[in-house]
Amino acid sequence: MTQIYDRVAVIGLGLIASSMIHAMRRAGLAGTITGYDASPAHMQMAAEDGLCDQLAGSAAEAAEGADLVALCVPVGAMGQVAEEIAGHLKAGATVTDVGSVKRAVVDAVAPHLPPDVTFIPGHPMAGTEFSGPRAGFAELFDGRWCLLLPPEGCDPGALGKLRALWTAMGATVEEMDPDHHDLVCAVISHAPHLIAYTMVGVADDLRRVTDSEVIKFSAAGFRDFTRIAASDPTMWRDVFLNNKDATLEILGRFTEELFALQRAIRTGDGDMLHDYFTRTRAIRKGIIEAGQDTAAPDFGRSTRRPGE
Amino acid sequence: MTQIYDRVAVIGLGLIASSMIHAMRRAGLAGTITGYDASPAHMQMAAEDGLCDQLAGSAAEAAEGADLVALCVPVGAMGQVAEEIAGHLKAGATVTDVGSVKRAVVDAVAPHLPPDVTFIPGHPMAGTEFSGPRAGFAELFDGRWCLLLPPEGCDPGALGKLRALWTAMGATVEEMDPDHHDLVCAVISHAPHLIAYTMVGVADDLRRVTDSEVIKFSAAGFRDFTRIAASDPTMWRDVFLNNKDATLEILGRFTEELFALQRAIRTGDGDMLHDYFTRTRAIRKGIIEAGQDTAAPDFGRSTRRPGE
Repeated sequence: MTQIYDRVAVIGLGLIASSMIHAMRRAGLAGTITGYDASPAHMQMAAEDGLCDQLAGSAAEAAEGADLVALCVPVGAMGQVAEEIAGHLKAGATVTDVGSVKRAVVDAVAPHLPPDVTFIPGHPMAGTEFSGPRAGFAELFDGRWCLLLPPEGCDPGALGKLRALWTAMGATVEEMDPDHHDLVCAVISHAPHLIAYTMVGVADDLRRVTDSEVIKFSAAGFRDFTRIAASDPTMWRDVFLNNKDATLEILGRFTEELFALQRAIRTGDGDMLHDYFTRTRAIRKGIIEAGQDTAAPDFGRSTRRPGE
Repeated sequence: MTQIYDRVAVIGLGLIASSMIHAMRRAGLAGTITGYDASPAHMQMAAEDGLCDQLAGSAAEAAEGADLVALCVPVGAMGQVAEEIAGHLKAGATVTDVGSVKRAVVDAVAPHLPPDVTFIPGHPMAGTEFSGPRAGFAELFDGRWCLLLPPEGCDPGALGKLRALWTAMGATVEEMDPDHHDLVCAVISHAPHLIAYTMVGVADDLRRVTDSEVIKFSAAGFRDFTRIAASDPTMWRDVFLNNKDATLEILGRFTEELFALQRAIRTGDGDMLHDYFTRTRAIRKGIIEAGQDTAAPDFGRSTRRPGE
């Protein structure tokens, strides 16, 4: 593959950032990669592992002279980082981000950036329950979607290069509008995460009643929730605070629906339950046919104990 | 391994039953396995695959002369099957079941059985989202728990043999009381399943708003819910109708907690959210340390598209 950007700055060195760095290196997409993270522990890990070609002392220093600046910090920190780097950006540079919420990021970042810089918000739809500079791997984006949200009148050359970068990192790029993005993500990601966090919290409280049984016998459904609820707390706090309206709307719909099912259980309406569960089964089939999950039973995960 | 039962009857030939048959054969635990299922389609598949040593024309015929009768039908059908087989059971036989609810099964089955038969309810804590005679595999119970719920004064010889069977099929056996079982399962399995069904139902409704995007971009959390919500509709209808009180109690707790988190989002209480999400993260760690799930990111599932 050919190099797409000469100098890339990655600000924030978590799961997505470190995966991007590994994916760019796998295909030789960047000349030099400069990294920065506000956490000294993350900087130490990045230094020990040689994660980046060089580490900067600040976000501004990292951005200096970069052709592409990728903001990979929690959504709530995007505005401040944009303000810090604004005076240090090279004319003609592209700034992008990887936040899970887009309207709030556009509103927080865009006003700070000078007019000779192109801002193209992004959202790679990939992740795991792990976080930090050591959680990343080059294959994270392979076969996954990356949404780009170019503003009206966006420079086509800058957009083409960013599309080429994500494609070469393994993703399929699609363009979307920020508000529609936030609604879709509230349904497929934000509300499910809050619900998983809630169920795990309830189980944690009940642990006192049920001793360690909740953990011991977790295989029966609950453990799928715990994986989601093990995601990075800061990232998710910021997602909910910054996609408040869409998340609350979906949660309202969810509660309404849950009450209808609870009522069917209470009144013994087996037909309603059976119809509902038959309908939801079809969605799984659609997802597997769309290539978005494995058809292997139980995700194909090994159920053996460690050491066996 | 040595044979544990001479003649085993398996009534209902779904995921659990077919896995038991494969696991018994793997270790040579049964002399002859006779199967029966009320569904002609299931009987046809079982016949084509040679799943059992022989197929019976009715539940009563299958139970005739068996040393162990395993009831593997949905929870709501247990009582009727018990009534059908009651007059055909051999003196000294053991009857067990694999239902996910225990108090209702005990109440429905026990009154029908003659006094010279030992009834030991059971619940293997294992499964996948697939169902039917072709969904089973010998390894399903390896490293998983099987709960047995012997009544007071249960014949120790009969209990010892059933424990030996489950152990030889790969499971670790633990004894529990039916009411406590139903509460624990409401937390770790029944409530999570209802919640997953609900969230998938909401997304299905919104599909009209968001076109096919819900399926297309499902990787971001939602697809974990769809796996759970793809489970057998009849089985789950019966679980909810038969573990009504415990499920509704846990769902009540869940709603209370969800409202508290929604309120934190609405009022912008980031500290509350962050603390909550940090606490739930610890539970995942406990589950992995207890050997009940893989530590591999994203369950170690392949994210590649079919054909790649």
